[in-house]
Amino acid sequence: MLATLIHAPGDIRVEEVPDPVLSGSGWDAVVRVVAACVCGSDLWPYRGVTPTTKPHRMGHEFVGVVEEVGGSVARIKVGDFVIAPFYRCDMTCVNCRNGVSTSCLHGGWWGEHAQDGGFADGGQGTRVRVPDADGTLVATPEPPAPELVPHLLTLADVMGTGHHAAVSAGVGAGSTVAVVGDGAVGLCAVLAARRLGASRIVAMSRHASRQEVAREFGATEVVPERGDEGIARLKEMFDGVGPDRVLECVGTKESMDQALRSARPGGQVGFVGVPNGGPELPIPVMFGTNVGVRGGVAPVRNYIEELLPEVLDGRLRPGRVFDLELPLADAAEAYAAMDERRAIKVLLRP
Amino acid sequence: MLATLIHAPGDIRVEEVPDPVLSGSGWDAVVRVVAACVCGSDLWPYRGVTPTTKPHRMGHEFVGVVEEVGGSVARIKVGDFVIAPFYRCDMTCVNCRNGVSTSCLHGGWWGEHAQDGGFADGGQGTRVRVPDADGTLVATPEPPAPELVPHLLTLADVMGTGHHAAVSAGVGAGSTVAVVGDGAVGLCAVLAARRLGASRIVAMSRHASRQEVAREFGATEVVPERGDEGIARLKEMFDGVGPDRVLECVGTKESMDQALRSARPGGQVGFVGVPNGGPELPIPVMFGTNVGVRGGVAPVRNYIEELLPEVLDGRLRPGRVFDLELPLADAAEAYAAMDERRAIKVLLRP
Repeated sequence: MLATLIHAPGDIRVEEVPDPVLSGSGWDAVVRVVAACVCGSDLWPYRGVTPTTKPHRMGHEFVGVVEEVGGSVARIKVGDFVIAPFYRCDMTCVNCRNGVSTSCLHGGWWGEHAQDGGFADGGQGTRVRVPDADGTLVATPEPPAPELVPHLLTLADVMGTGHHAAVSAGVGAGSTVAVVGDGAVGLCAVLAARRLGASRIVAMSRHASRQEVAREFGATEVVPERGDEGIARLKEMFDGVGPDRVLECVGTKESMDQALRSARPGGQVGFVGVPNGGPELPIPVMFGTNVGVRGGVAPVRNYIEELLPEVLDGRLRPGRVFDLELPLADAAEAYAAMDERRAIKVLLRP
Repeated sequence: MLATLIHAPGDIRVEEVPDPVLSGSGWDAVVRVVAACVCGSDLWPYRGVTPTTKPHRMGHEFVGVVEEVGGSVARIKVGDFVIAPFYRCDMTCVNCRNGVSTSCLHGGWWGEHAQDGGFADGGQGTRVRVPDADGTLVATPEPPAPELVPHLLTLADVMGTGHHAAVSAGVGAGSTVAVVGDGAVGLCAVLAARRLGASRIVAMSRHASRQEVAREFGATEVVPERGDEGIARLKEMFDGVGPDRVLECVGTKESMDQALRSARPGGQVGFVGVPNGGPELPIPVMFGTNVGVRGGVAPVRNYIEELLPEVLDGRLRPGRVFDLELPLADAAEAYAAMDERRAIKVLLRP
């Protein structure tokens, strides 16, 4: 089958790799990928921000159709259309039951060897072997209409991650919200904040095409300024003190600093940007303002059941973040388009 | 009148100072202090951890009886028994209305010149001029019985601060909780966690007398180990992953690190220890575990109305943290007793 590998920064190749086979553990499945995509975090190795010491598989967001299941798999069936979160989990351990399946005691990532002795393929390929299929995968009640596929694919990561930013920040009915970051996750965070009842949502964005999606998703205002100027604008807009909730969807020291200093006293920052460069939070600032910080790697598997019905009935249309669609063979161009910000997010069709 | 001043590290003196007089603003009051106390944070200048450049007034926790009020004061009346929080606030600005009166736009501290042109005396003295009396002070419905005074005095700081740790950590019915710090605030945090319905409360303490108070306040278990050993004990006690909520009531880098690494994935740290040495929080750790951090300088004024009825009817008896009572004239000995950990907290009677 075909799979996407990174060989070095900027060097993305789609290559022939061995077909996945069931491990014999009984708990896995093989999924034929219907759609996959490129994540903002895939750009870290692409840009050389994180090192690539040897070629490895890429991709952690995919939806597809189940082709085979192990003998112990009970919930997932051959022929099911399934959504895979960007990680693997069993949904039975204490952390999964606590709603934090990203900390599953028996879970892991895509594109690595799994605890059952087999390989868990990357998502940007033709097929994926899925360990712990009953825990990891969520099947739709029936095969979805083709136009729903991009929306369903966002439940693998960006929509669930935007939702996690909003939930972590404590967004609720009437909240005032600012969203730092206008990538796919930031835009989904706008949508999630609207869904949770925010009364005002400010998208921090300076790109016309992204501002447009933000407004479609429910942003009531757009602020192009950043840093101190952006903070000053937000304070001015919200009673001189800032919005209740700030959703940090970038992951740099600058974006976290901006988020922390934008929230009103007693407010909260929900953060989901993958930390880049290991920024630290100044406790004295948090102590003085009582601004809380909560978030992290989003347990999107725990959110799929909540969000799925609204995607299926058309109330939630997060797939709008895909503004470019390419065949899997053109994965290198997909990375380049996102790296150069020519596309918000690229969908790949095997 | 008499007031307590610090002249240099270790040099606490009770001296004659000018009697307070109303400023003429109309919004202030003069309170005769019935009881005051020494705070753990008073030990920072006493120990030279924070510098003392010139002699200044001390004390920010007091209860007393109103002797005079300005012409515009409406809620507070001469003769009222009042509780003063450890800071001044108007309770009308946007931050006060948002529940964060410690960020009052017109507030300030004790022992400094206030916005109305007058001086706001320190609490460790005979009398205190209170700016914004209607905002800052809370009167009891009637003069309290003398035995209630120590309990009421804790609402000025330590009980409200312990409550803030529990609220900030999200303690609710059934929560499992660990409390880092066995000072007066940590002990009050145990009491607050019990009041909020925690099912298990671990006091991290290695002092027999403090362990005893912790158990009286509702601790179900005591763990004397600290650092990595303490974290390992907590993980072992709670499903291998740690308690839901950790209340950080110390303020050092070590205590915050212990708190952050003790909470289970998806848990939350509520912190109220005054940051000593400006520790920073590692975002990558928080990102990986989804442990939130929330807290800060406790808006105890916003909590007094909620806690006061339970103190008045005897359900809450936080005054148990006072294990030494001295006349105001012996303030220097009060500081020494707390510094040497001979006393948990010292009550001063003018």
